[in-house]
Amino acid sequence: MDTNISPYDLRQLIRKGEFTRNTSGFSQGYVQGNLAIMPKEWANEFLQFCQLNPKPCPIIGMSSNPGDFLLPDLGADLDIRTDIPLYRIYEHGELVKEVSDVKQVWRDDLVTFVLGCSFSFEESLLADGLEVRNITEQVNVPMYRTNIDCKPAGRFSGTTVVSMRPMKPKDAIRAIQICTRFPSVHGAPLHFGNPQDIGISDISQPDFGDAVTIKEGEVPVFWACGVTPQVAIENARPPLCITHSPGYMLVTDIRNSSLAIM
Amino acid sequence: MDTNISPYDLRQLIRKGEFTRNTSGFSQGYVQGNLAIMPKEWANEFLQFCQLNPKPCPIIGMSSNPGDFLLPDLGADLDIRTDIPLYRIYEHGELVKEVSDVKQVWRDDLVTFVLGCSFSFEESLLADGLEVRNITEQVNVPMYRTNIDCKPAGRFSGTTVVSMRPMKPKDAIRAIQICTRFPSVHGAPLHFGNPQDIGISDISQPDFGDAVTIKEGEVPVFWACGVTPQVAIENARPPLCITHSPGYMLVTDIRNSSLAIM
Repeated sequence: MDTNISPYDLRQLIRKGEFTRNTSGFSQGYVQGNLAIMPKEWANEFLQFCQLNPKPCPIIGMSSNPGDFLLPDLGADLDIRTDIPLYRIYEHGELVKEVSDVKQVWRDDLVTFVLGCSFSFEESLLADGLEVRNITEQVNVPMYRTNIDCKPAGRFSGTTVVSMRPMKPKDAIRAIQICTRFPSVHGAPLHFGNPQDIGISDISQPDFGDAVTIKEGEVPVFWACGVTPQVAIENARPPLCITHSPGYMLVTDIRNSSLAIM
Repeated sequence: MDTNISPYDLRQLIRKGEFTRNTSGFSQGYVQGNLAIMPKEWANEFLQFCQLNPKPCPIIGMSSNPGDFLLPDLGADLDIRTDIPLYRIYEHGELVKEVSDVKQVWRDDLVTFVLGCSFSFEESLLADGLEVRNITEQVNVPMYRTNIDCKPAGRFSGTTVVSMRPMKPKDAIRAIQICTRFPSVHGAPLHFGNPQDIGISDISQPDFGDAVTIKEGEVPVFWACGVTPQVAIENARPPLCITHSPGYMLVTDIRNSSLAIM
């Protein structure tokens, strides 16, 4: 299948059940987003949590009103109930099932949040000739829980989860410059170097994703990660929350380049 | 004496011999520059050397024609022969004397170059709340010869000299962002972390300036340094070259903030 498929065409295939894989590498150049859907009596606090913690929780879109399942600002004819290949349904913080659409569980009080994801900045790093180790090694990026507290908002709280990409210092400096242009997809790294500085005891044992090789002369570089809001949601235990399944993202009509602040 | 003196007033005092100290901390907010003056038959090659190596050798001004000693683009009534507190005169690459003005040795074939200096970006780092260790410890910044080759131009060649400021990784990331805005005063760092990666064998023994404390949890961060062109000039051995004495800079009417590219 052609990976250059347009976001619209890809969403239509997903809606018809004809595309059921993860979305990594498809519709290159376009923003893929993390999904979080929850009842309106939880949504205001979650919105505040995101506003207070913009590096791990950058909002790139949300529904205008509770119950809205169309998100025209993010894509033509985009139906959030059907246009993601695989959803996760959480009840009271527990994963209860994975489903290919959420029409059956949709309610009039559900509010949708779409958050920026690292795919966007990885594309810019690659375009600049930098190596992204998890892409080279064809694994999920390694992610770690840290001791960096998020600012709490109501029932939402937790520590920051980071993703890690090893780089030579020279390349890390360039990556900091590139990612600074993209605050809505996690922005500049939070840390580089000693993992213990941010509470990571064993870099070879990620809490999420897969370990990658760190070569001689490289340092681990850590970015705020979109798993952070998922952990905060698990801590908050809303009665219902719908997310994407990791890697099965919402593919939007927004160009990655349009997220650059300069 | 008031450190907030205007650049014009400071230059007038220098010209009259009433200010003979180093210029660090005076006329804050204004660009201070490194000086290099040489005969025109050497100047074109030096200009090319600077163009090829803009991080260590950022040109912020030069004389319009050989023999010009007024530099109106850099300051009102700025006379490069008299407006620096202490000059160094080199002959065939050897320092022969330090003098308070160069009227006696001025010639019609001399071309003046003014290069950006780290004072400008240090001001922006301090303004952002970052610590600059050499300022805290009231010493000259430590500088080191590296194994990073400059691109040669004619008779000018050499390796890059770097300055070093230790920082926590979080602060180093912010410093990279801030300095990226100022390409004409050395721009973003070249390296951080392991000094041996760039050919520095002993971080406690700088080749120029003074050692500073590196605290637990900090990494050394390395910027291209204006001593680089001085080393290239020493290597090239022009029959005559005039520079400022370290710390005794040309104070211009250009605001540091105006050097920001965004």
